[in-house]
Amino acid sequence: MSAPKPRPARPGEAFFSEPLPATDDAGLVFIGRLRSPFAEFDGCPKNRRAALEAGGGGSVEIDRPWREALAGLSVGDHVFCLSWLHGARRDLALQKPRHAETARGTFSLRSPARPNPIGLHLARIIALDPEAGILRLDAIDVVDGTPLLDIKPYFASVDRPAED
Amino acid sequence: MSAPKPRPARPGEAFFSEPLPATDDAGLVFIGRLRSPFAEFDGCPKNRRAALEAGGGGSVEIDRPWREALAGLSVGDHVFCLSWLHGARRDLALQKPRHAETARGTFSLRSPARPNPIGLHLARIIALDPEAGILRLDAIDVVDGTPLLDIKPYFASVDRPAED
Repeated sequence: MSAPKPRPARPGEAFFSEPLPATDDAGLVFIGRLRSPFAEFDGCPKNRRAALEAGGGGSVEIDRPWREALAGLSVGDHVFCLSWLHGARRDLALQKPRHAETARGTFSLRSPARPNPIGLHLARIIALDPEAGILRLDAIDVVDGTPLLDIKPYFASVDRPAED
Repeated sequence: MSAPKPRPARPGEAFFSEPLPATDDAGLVFIGRLRSPFAEFDGCPKNRRAALEAGGGGSVEIDRPWREALAGLSVGDHVFCLSWLHGARRDLALQKPRHAETARGTFSLRSPARPNPIGLHLARIIALDPEAGILRLDAIDVVDGTPLLDIKPYFASVDRPAED
């Protein structure tokens, strides 16, 4: 699946003062992909709550070399899926979400556009077939085919503010 | 700061059936670094709870080109810091944490050793100087100097299980 085309910059948005460096500091391997009911970025839910409301669930497909590492995950567990948001701009310092009045800094937003476009998606495992490399999820807020980087178990003791 | 030396594999641990691909699927840029009281991996807290107990706080240093993107963050906010765990092994499918009796799959653990060693660290901002690119944090569970990839705001509405 090819990467979606990056969106145009909007009026009021600002670029970083320097371009992305020409050489990478570190390299990633895609270990699988996220499957969702959302073929296009337009219409794709922008967060977990919207994805749950949209329904249709989602899944993780892990490629063969990495499947053994699924041992220890169980149905009902919550996990963080880390994705590579392959159609995202990497050059915006200030962004103006469509619903917003003013532009805000990229690091105060969950927009996919960021210097390292890594998506962070909490999801609950509703079915699991480690040999086939499939995790069915309750919901996922990405375009179908988005590359997967990592799966991490969620732990309330460390992943939630104490007062939350 | 140079990367820590990867730890040796332990008895009971298993490697992935194939080596990491020779070519990267995507590239990362380091946008700054995390500063902590922990100079060495031995003795570094392994999660947020342990880092809070250890005390000493921590901070984020954002390099100049990326600082404008801090606009909109405030003291008291919780954020996720994403790091590149530069001293971590990338070849372990099953791991045996030192306190564990049996080995478990990498994706069921929060160990730094994983195919894409991206660290996910919740922290609270306790002071903020966007022009200097400094965020002081209540605690951080990484070795001093660990490269920074991203900062994302924490939202209880999407980052926490509903029943949590």
